[in-house]
Amino acid sequence: MALIVQKYGGTSVGDPDRIRNVARRVVATHDEGNQVVVCVSAMSGETNQLVDLAQQLGGERPDAREYDVLVSTGEQKTIALLAMAIHQLGREARSFTGAQMGMNTDSDHTRARITEIDCTRLRATLDEGAIAVIAGFQGIDPEGNITTLGRGGSDTSAVAMACALEADVCEIYTDVDGVYTADPRVVSDARKLHSVAYEEMLEMASLGAKVLQIRSVKFAMRYGVPIHVRSSFKSDEGTWVTREEDVMERLVVSGVTHNLNEAKIRVKGVEDHPGIAGKLFKPISDAGIQIDMIVQNLSSDGATDMTFTVPRGEYKKALEIANAASGEIGATEVEGDEAIAKISIVGLGMQDHAGVAARMFTTLADEGINIQLISTSEIKVSVVIEEKYAELALRALHAEFVEDGAAEPAPE
Amino acid sequence: MALIVQKYGGTSVGDPDRIRNVARRVVATHDEGNQVVVCVSAMSGETNQLVDLAQQLGGERPDAREYDVLVSTGEQKTIALLAMAIHQLGREARSFTGAQMGMNTDSDHTRARITEIDCTRLRATLDEGAIAVIAGFQGIDPEGNITTLGRGGSDTSAVAMACALEADVCEIYTDVDGVYTADPRVVSDARKLHSVAYEEMLEMASLGAKVLQIRSVKFAMRYGVPIHVRSSFKSDEGTWVTREEDVMERLVVSGVTHNLNEAKIRVKGVEDHPGIAGKLFKPISDAGIQIDMIVQNLSSDGATDMTFTVPRGEYKKALEIANAASGEIGATEVEGDEAIAKISIVGLGMQDHAGVAARMFTTLADEGINIQLISTSEIKVSVVIEEKYAELALRALHAEFVEDGAAEPAPE
Repeated sequence: MALIVQKYGGTSVGDPDRIRNVARRVVATHDEGNQVVVCVSAMSGETNQLVDLAQQLGGERPDAREYDVLVSTGEQKTIALLAMAIHQLGREARSFTGAQMGMNTDSDHTRARITEIDCTRLRATLDEGAIAVIAGFQGIDPEGNITTLGRGGSDTSAVAMACALEADVCEIYTDVDGVYTADPRVVSDARKLHSVAYEEMLEMASLGAKVLQIRSVKFAMRYGVPIHVRSSFKSDEGTWVTREEDVMERLVVSGVTHNLNEAKIRVKGVEDHPGIAGKLFKPISDAGIQIDMIVQNLSSDGATDMTFTVPRGEYKKALEIANAASGEIGATEVEGDEAIAKISIVGLGMQDHAGVAARMFTTLADEGINIQLISTSEIKVSVVIEEKYAELALRALHAEFVEDGAAEPAPE
Repeated sequence: MALIVQKYGGTSVGDPDRIRNVARRVVATHDEGNQVVVCVSAMSGETNQLVDLAQQLGGERPDAREYDVLVSTGEQKTIALLAMAIHQLGREARSFTGAQMGMNTDSDHTRARITEIDCTRLRATLDEGAIAVIAGFQGIDPEGNITTLGRGGSDTSAVAMACALEADVCEIYTDVDGVYTADPRVVSDARKLHSVAYEEMLEMASLGAKVLQIRSVKFAMRYGVPIHVRSSFKSDEGTWVTREEDVMERLVVSGVTHNLNEAKIRVKGVEDHPGIAGKLFKPISDAGIQIDMIVQNLSSDGATDMTFTVPRGEYKKALEIANAASGEIGATEVEGDEAIAKISIVGLGMQDHAGVAARMFTTLADEGINIQLISTSEIKVSVVIEEKYAELALRALHAEFVEDGAAEPAPE
């Protein structure tokens, strides 16, 4: 008998028929002799409606405590409806809100962090042979206030609960059927990975692959609970996210990702002495804008260029701030470009193979693609290029590293 | 400084504009130097939508525990939105679900009874100078399960909380502006009562006047908390429901009510010996049908007629059961009539004035209205008549007892 945590997103529970469908899958898993915990999101569209109401009554920045009280009703609806649907199939089920499932968090409303999970009630429910249906995304703070974990927090709820219960697996049901070596809409030869290491998944998630939330991968990695990403509409195996030693294929590069949601800002002729970077980046991060890549050119004549990327939605605001700061840091010019793409290759295999970055640059050069920025880590290389070359670059790198690279060891 | 509990129903919080309107009233009351607790229902239409979803997924009789988890989200939405709207007006407010406000109930889901209210958190909130916004209709059982008090339970939540907090008044805001001597849509001379005794209000509520839930009046009566029924759209005083000694006007009859939602069943030629009534009424009440009036005629030749009324929606079912039972009790015939009206006069003043019933019958006879059934209590007389005479009877009795009777003592 295994203990299985399943998580279904908003699309999978988007209407009564889909909820009934989820109920059937849950019951099938239960009837195979497993203990089952199901974690659900709000029905698709529901959260947006609630957020809209919040803005109508609470303005641009509604009170955070009350915002959590409001949006947590979305998941509460789904758990009750799913439990009812399971009852209709003749099985015992019990729903749990964040408070009821012992999902203790800090008091940082709208983006609370899980502090401790008391799964006494959940265990008792499972021991009675009932299915536990838990609300994703929500918790309770030490004073009994309702909290939420922030957007996409349902993945985190499911994985954290799987860790607390020492579950055998956490299955994440979604509208894609696994993790691919590249976006299959762009690269027709992209293939589904059987398994991928936590560390690789973390990089891919942070690079824009939207299959799993970063926080949920971190939880699973820390506690060693395998995640199985699979389709809510098919019964095929999906992709296992697991420890490096449990990954069956040994690829140099597991995935090639692209991200079209960044923009680039270049500040020219900055005085090259200590404290300058802080004067430029502090006001930007104070404005809540997340800076991704930062590259500083070699200095000549005591001046340097500084280039960085920000989310495209924050581009205008970041450009204004950079312009405002330019006087103080002695910059000669500030220029920006929204038409960029960030292309990355990710793989644990890179650690053992020198020259992967060089091979990446050569591949792009062979296609006549100019590289604007480079950023590397132990297991990934990212480059910024002109947006119009994004698909070409993705296909070329996929062919080089995944289609060919999987068959033969990468050249040293 | 007074402690005021205000309750707003679903229509009063039916859309964002109305919620803002309620926020303004609440803030005005707070700014006059009062401590304020606001109890709200779900936005109008919301509960029906949730009930519809429950039936789609849980069938005719959805699991009661999960039903409560589902429908309680309606009020949870409203408390968060109202608290946000109050914040927008620059005042502190905090929302409370059933669990958070310490509304402890038994475990009888969908119709739980309040067992104890722990108002520690609410008091602390009020002592900080903040406004407490509480969800009507919901509570928590000893195991931490969400419960609901049944339809209309928000009145009960508000009044029970007012009692627990020893509030100075519980204001019930509704779409009528008070308690009238008769339904003003029927009797144009009906007038709003300044005050009415708990006992009278209880009779009126049980006779079909829909201003207040019976349970809430019982609570207020037990703890001596005055209820002030008033309009959410006007600022005029409404009607005070209070102790007899605090009622300012001394009327023989405070209200004339009519109820068109009952039907009559007559079982003829029943054997007149002990146990017969039980054999007839037990199966009817076992079917969950509430019997209102029961009248047994004088026996002749060892047989008797038994007549009773049931809610019109249950008429067909009750008639079937009565027919099925008729053999066993030796009845010669079962007949029914849906086209009836129950007309009642209610007033504490009746206790001191003999002849009120006789005067009622005379008034009806003068209009040529035949009385089919009579039922009396200390402070009310009800009669069943043909439905088509309902309005005529109401106006005649109102003229006799309220318009004239208020000015002069009733004849002995």
